Amino acid sequence: MNQKWVYMFKEGDPKNKNLLGGKGANLADMTQLGLPIPQGFTVTTEACTEYYNNGQALSNEIESQIKSCLVNLEELSGKKFGDNTNPLLVSVRSGARVSMPGMMDTVLNLGLNDEAVVGLANKTENERFAYDSYRRFIQMFSDVVMEIPKPRFEKIIDEMKEAKGVKLDTELDANDLKEMVIRFKALYKEVKGVDFPQDPEVQLMEAVKAVFRSWMNPRAIVYRRMNDYPSSWGTAVNVQMMVFGNMGDTSGTGVAFTRNPSTGENAIYGEYLINAQGEDVVAGIRTPSHISQLEQDMPEVYTEFMNIAHTLENHYHDMQDMEFTVENGKLYFLQTRNGKRTAAAALRIAVDLVAEGQITEEEAVLRVEPKQLDQLLHPMFDAKALKAAKVIGKALPASPGAAAGKVYFTAEDAKEAGAAGERVILVRLETSPEDIEGMAAARGILTVRGGMTSHAAVVARGMGTCCVSGCGEIQINEEEKHFSLGGMTFHEGDYISLDGSTGNIYGEDVATVEPEITGDFETFMAWADKYRTLKVRTNADSPKDAQNAVKFGAEGIGLCRTEHMFFEEDRIMKMRKMIVSKTEAERREALDALLPLQKGDFVGIYEAMGERPVTVRLLDPPLHEFLPHTDEDIATLAGEMGITFEDLKATVESLHEFNPMMGHRGCRLAVSYPEIAEMQARAIIEAAIQVKQEKGYDIVPEIMIPLVGEVKELKYVKDIVVAAADKAIAEADVTLTYHVGTMIEIPRAAVTADQIAEEAEFFSFGTNDLTQMTFGFSRDDAGKFLEDYYGKGVYESDPFARLDQTGVGALVQMAAEKGRSIRSDIKLGICGEHGGDPSSIEFCHKVGLNYVSCSPFRVPIARLAAAQAAIKNK
Amino acid sequence: MNQKWVYMFKEGDPKNKNLLGGKGANLADMTQLGLPIPQGFTVTTEACTEYYNNGQALSNEIESQIKSCLVNLEELSGKKFGDNTNPLLVSVRSGARVSMPGMMDTVLNLGLNDEAVVGLANKTENERFAYDSYRRFIQMFSDVVMEIPKPRFEKIIDEMKEAKGVKLDTELDANDLKEMVIRFKALYKEVKGVDFPQDPEVQLMEAVKAVFRSWMNPRAIVYRRMNDYPSSWGTAVNVQMMVFGNMGDTSGTGVAFTRNPSTGENAIYGEYLINAQGEDVVAGIRTPSHISQLEQDMPEVYTEFMNIAHTLENHYHDMQDMEFTVENGKLYFLQTRNGKRTAAAALRIAVDLVAEGQITEEEAVLRVEPKQLDQLLHPMFDAKALKAAKVIGKALPASPGAAAGKVYFTAEDAKEAGAAGERVILVRLETSPEDIEGMAAARGILTVRGGMTSHAAVVARGMGTCCVSGCGEIQINEEEKHFSLGGMTFHEGDYISLDGSTGNIYGEDVATVEPEITGDFETFMAWADKYRTLKVRTNADSPKDAQNAVKFGAEGIGLCRTEHMFFEEDRIMKMRKMIVSKTEAERREALDALLPLQKGDFVGIYEAMGERPVTVRLLDPPLHEFLPHTDEDIATLAGEMGITFEDLKATVESLHEFNPMMGHRGCRLAVSYPEIAEMQARAIIEAAIQVKQEKGYDIVPEIMIPLVGEVKELKYVKDIVVAAADKAIAEADVTLTYHVGTMIEIPRAAVTADQIAEEAEFFSFGTNDLTQMTFGFSRDDAGKFLEDYYGKGVYESDPFARLDQTGVGALVQMAAEKGRSIRSDIKLGICGEHGGDPSSIEFCHKVGLNYVSCSPFRVPIARLAAAQAAIKNK
Repeated sequence: MNQKWVYMFKEGDPKNKNLLGGKGANLADMTQLGLPIPQGFTVTTEACTEYYNNGQALSNEIESQIKSCLVNLEELSGKKFGDNTNPLLVSVRSGARVSMPGMMDTVLNLGLNDEAVVGLANKTENERFAYDSYRRFIQMFSDVVMEIPKPRFEKIIDEMKEAKGVKLDTELDANDLKEMVIRFKALYKEVKGVDFPQDPEVQLMEAVKAVFRSWMNPRAIVYRRMNDYPSSWGTAVNVQMMVFGNMGDTSGTGVAFTRNPSTGENAIYGEYLINAQGEDVVAGIRTPSHISQLEQDMPEVYTEFMNIAHTLENHYHDMQDMEFTVENGKLYFLQTRNGKRTAAAALRIAVDLVAEGQITEEEAVLRVEPKQLDQLLHPMFDAKALKAAKVIGKALPASPGAAAGKVYFTAEDAKEAGAAGERVILVRLETSPEDIEGMAAARGILTVRGGMTSHAAVVARGMGTCCVSGCGEIQINEEEKHFSLGGMTFHEGDYISLDGSTGNIYGEDVATVEPEITGDFETFMAWADKYRTLKVRTNADSPKDAQNAVKFGAEGIGLCRTEHMFFEEDRIMKMRKMIVSKTEAERREALDALLPLQKGDFVGIYEAMGERPVTVRLLDPPLHEFLPHTDEDIATLAGEMGITFEDLKATVESLHEFNPMMGHRGCRLAVSYPEIAEMQARAIIEAAIQVKQEKGYDIVPEIMIPLVGEVKELKYVKDIVVAAADKAIAEADVTLTYHVGTMIEIPRAAVTADQIAEEAEFFSFGTNDLTQMTFGFSRDDAGKFLEDYYGKGVYESDPFARLDQTGVGALVQMAAEKGRSIRSDIKLGICGEHGGDPSSIEFCHKVGLNYVSCSPFRVPIARLAAAQAAIKNK
Repeated sequence: MNQKWVYMFKEGDPKNKNLLGGKGANLADMTQLGLPIPQGFTVTTEACTEYYNNGQALSNEIESQIKSCLVNLEELSGKKFGDNTNPLLVSVRSGARVSMPGMMDTVLNLGLNDEAVVGLANKTENERFAYDSYRRFIQMFSDVVMEIPKPRFEKIIDEMKEAKGVKLDTELDANDLKEMVIRFKALYKEVKGVDFPQDPEVQLMEAVKAVFRSWMNPRAIVYRRMNDYPSSWGTAVNVQMMVFGNMGDTSGTGVAFTRNPSTGENAIYGEYLINAQGEDVVAGIRTPSHISQLEQDMPEVYTEFMNIAHTLENHYHDMQDMEFTVENGKLYFLQTRNGKRTAAAALRIAVDLVAEGQITEEEAVLRVEPKQLDQLLHPMFDAKALKAAKVIGKALPASPGAAAGKVYFTAEDAKEAGAAGERVILVRLETSPEDIEGMAAARGILTVRGGMTSHAAVVARGMGTCCVSGCGEIQINEEEKHFSLGGMTFHEGDYISLDGSTGNIYGEDVATVEPEITGDFETFMAWADKYRTLKVRTNADSPKDAQNAVKFGAEGIGLCRTEHMFFEEDRIMKMRKMIVSKTEAERREALDALLPLQKGDFVGIYEAMGERPVTVRLLDPPLHEFLPHTDEDIATLAGEMGITFEDLKATVESLHEFNPMMGHRGCRLAVSYPEIAEMQARAIIEAAIQVKQEKGYDIVPEIMIPLVGEVKELKYVKDIVVAAADKAIAEADVTLTYHVGTMIEIPRAAVTADQIAEEAEFFSFGTNDLTQMTFGFSRDDAGKFLEDYYGKGVYESDPFARLDQTGVGALVQMAAEKGRSIRSDIKLGICGEHGGDPSSIEFCHKVGLNYVSCSPFRVPIARLAAAQAAIKNK
């Protein structure tokens, strides 16, 4: 038997969204529920795949199935394609597995030709409407299906209006529109060399192919990337009989939600227009009425509408977003789908639906998009203010939230202005660890260079500060303190606003509103916590971050980066002294000066975390990151340090690396300079002893050795750490348990994880570096070519944002299995950026990690994503 | 039963070198053959491992077994430890599985104490000798075992000679030496706080531990690294009764080889001294006699010696290196081992032994160290001239051979001087692709920076040019054209000499001799070719390299790097024009100008290779490598190109990368600029068609797409290549087969090799990059910390020279298996530096690769290594 490529609505399996698309499945469902649906059929997503496999052509079999469905549709509707009395007109719409609003193409009024237009005029008794529909169809078909640029048609309209001396399209009468049709068809022939297709079947086949093509248009590719949808899904095509809401005062069209999509309130919400088509609502010439007005206008229709709306909500157990049309007093539902909603509404609806007994707690947990929770935790722009604001640029949405303030160009200026009470936006070419205090003082950060995992992005997310990164269009002059973007120039103290959730940049002071956490949030998150099995930790380097994270529900620290502490004002000079040391003795002296400060850091963090586990990573970055690089800065610092310029310059040069990402860093530092690891281990242990003694907390520090690629390397550093730790414990004459483990972030560590597990008590997957090295590209450089990759369909998502399960994930899984094969109780976690990404979290759940760790503001997202993973994979 | 840690010579299994060490096994063998061996026992290599596992201590069990063997030895010898009439004295020597001459410690005359010295005096009737032996023993024991610096003893000797007014040690008499013993013992007590141990058992245990310790001394670590011996082997310790060659004119000592170790000639070769100990031979005070003199001096001993020498050679079927001592007319063999020999000797001996019926061809193939063949292919220093030359510095032996000439500091100067007939040594901070012509003009290359796989090293090996790299001790001023090393300063035109096989640098013009290839080479290599199954290809980028490689037996080109072609003078400007192009059209225009030149390159290479397969890799390096980086050079080039400085500077800046190794290179260039790959594919195919038509060769080009990490990426570029290739074939109206494959050099490619094999007709493992990314360190930077790693025993060999089988090898094997699982006939090769390394080649054989590819001068090495791998793994 031949494969079935096309299903009438009444034939389709409503559960099979993968095959029919969301829209197609719901239309089948509504049809089979007996609801008033304009009939039609769905060309499956498999046909889309077949179209691409077949060199972008429809097979004979698919075409023939479409044709026979057309015959069915004519029978069902009693109308006839191309008929001059009662013509069948159809809409042709895309419909993927998930809703991708506005991403793909639609053709309306298909079936119109020189005959059918007469039929439409007769049937609607409205010649102007009929020819207006025809000229719009020609225009839409030419644009969407045949790629003839719209402006060429607009030009004709303008010419005709000018000739007639009118301004609005609506001032053209039926005769004008008839002439316009003639001129449009002439233009079509001029461009394509053939007549505008009169055969509705030809129109339909071309439209179906155009919808399939639109699956691969650039905006659909970007949308899928942002939402983690693979291109392999394909889209279905729905061919549905047109109904008309513009047949007089007993006709109309509207859109409605069963609950309020902004607040979640359980009350019908929507608008409609009498005697109108969908386009009129969108065009905004007439103001739609609130849906409740329908009760006055057409009480019976309203009752039927409300009944069906309730039926649909009860059927899908979720808030519905419905399109309907009334044609001569007869109500049609054109489509229904689960409605998009704000985070607050999502929580309220989920909690209410459980209270109403419509869904279980587990189902409720699956109803909220984890990433949406961000909205609840960060300031947002005031909706009204935002509407009036002008976007002057767009870059990467690197850390969510909204911020408005005055621009400053150096970390110092930012710090000063912040201290003086200004709202600060820090604008930098790129940030470096030295900028940390200026970043902390800023409400928002804007960088010219750097991707989603650049220094600015990572640090901003950790702080919960809004950040827009990688805005290459900016012309910046950091020295003279100004930048230009979108034709405007901004000097120090000028206002701009940033939306870290969209990447939009505004050239003015846009009002923001603070986030509000409602009781629904607590209720909902308690359900999430009940069902998840993955623990959620946080990446935090300071007591403040740690406190924040605990507030958001963090159950420990998965990554405490010790190097961030060394960039603070009172430490950086000591650190530099350590780096320029010429002998071990000098280095030890400098380290002795750092020890009490480092210990103090850990005391603060342990106090903030109580008895929750804390994983501290030993020094990771290459040492040159702590030194200046220009001759001028070197000279200044040499002066401050009391050494010669030549001496310091020589140190800087000797530390230069061609590929610093793959350089002398991580545990390699500890192999070269064991005394650094020794000092850090001592600080970690002594701080734990102190807090244990002062607060009575039973602290079990986890010491993490980074960048290990070989078990002997781990063993060497571990031996140093253990010796220093045991010495500190013995000196204090206490008992204290601690664990030593490693990051798995080098491919070789994953490949040899069984050997490494002999020495490591825990693994933490550093998937940022593991991704870089598995793919062989540096995240600082990849931005330049990844756009080409997305554009050409080679990659569909950013591997630094979403864990690459095929490659990097295979190494993670291999390492997890090898690790457990040697040490069955090995603790496994992830501390890369992926620890806060929902799809990556689901992967972590599946491979059996014990916890994920992410920046404090992502902790709620991770808790929810972990719960969803557990429920989905039960 | 307790484990046996110690074996008397008569007990040991002569075949078990892993347990007894080479020396111990041979002593057991000779004992069991009934040869005259001073008896003794061997402490096993396992005891060495146990010693390290046990925190560097001897277990009671090991000590007790040593003691009981001592008792046995006393019985066997009829002598007694510490006896004052007939004392037993022993030597304590290391003896690893393989010979590591001079790397570890030895203690002689152990057992001497205040009693035994009297016994020795009595027995030898030579008091002076006895006390001289005793004072030497105290000195050696203190130095080797107790780490008391030698100079402190030397000082005492000097003082005593001064007091007595003599100059030579030999002028001190027995009484002086008695006093010296007293003063030495006092010094020992002063330093160690206890008396010099009188108990021979205590002396012995300490000496055994010292030998074990010496297994981990720095020179042993370096030696093992250079020879690929793992530290896990450990060393055995041989305790052997001392015999004395200095008991008068019927005593003597000597060293002999059964064949000439320089030429391989089948004639006894060696020297000996009457009335002497081994030390006297080394000290060089007396000139030894040729071994034939023994026939005159002691005819019976000579006959016995010759008989035993023949017995040994016939027993081991190899040339023997023997130490012997005659004590009062009685001949003792102290040890025998397979003798070290020159490459020429190794070939001759192997071929002769087959002719003599002693060994089979296969055994002969195993007898020559593949790396030794280098000696036969490169100029070497004249041995006599070398003896007189002074080493002024030492760095990495980056490309073998010897070279002497005048130093030049720029590629241009080198090229000019070379053209003028000078012998040129190019000295550079580091080389870059722009230096290629200067490098070609040089006889030797010396760089300050860069490791064994730096640009200089890789290119030099490809050219067969001697290169010493990474000499950090050099102070160089490239602008003023001079450098200092070892206290000397060299200006342009001054002579130096380089030994690329040892890394030695000489501050003068040392005479070299050209290599000679003898008939033995042909015979021997024919056997190697007969037994190997791996094919051997070469990495060659020019017709000249290709011809050279064919001469050395290359069976194809495994890696032809197209970028090297673009650095030549007539191309670099065209390449740069392509890079600064602002539109695809401009870029295509520039590429059109490169096409005929690129095609010409391939024509030359195909002509040189005949019908042998040629794999051409598409453009690999990041584009900024083709542009200058200083403002001065940018300004000059902008002028030459007729564009503005700002314009060119902007291009250079936009191409800047933080980690170029992981940047926009390889197939990523082809994804961004498909027209580059298109041009190259066309050039590859058009050249093949031309040579096919002109020469009648049936050429099947292999087009290799580099740096692939994802199958869709490969598919994208492959589609472009195939389209361009098919178009060129269609235009020429011919038939031509070609293959498209990829490099596996990114970890993700190895992990997803099954997917990649769907598109790739062949895999070539690029183990240079694969090693970098699997270990996560850049070879340009790793030099800085790898020394620490070797020193601390974390790594034992350079992973860029010897394939890391545990990590990188696991990925290679995984990729090979996954590749074959999808495409059973997939062709697998390796084209990284490892393709010329014997142990890596054995690995390639084991995982079933089809070929290895290496630089032309390594082809014979690879052929031999492949043969050995096949024979060993039959």
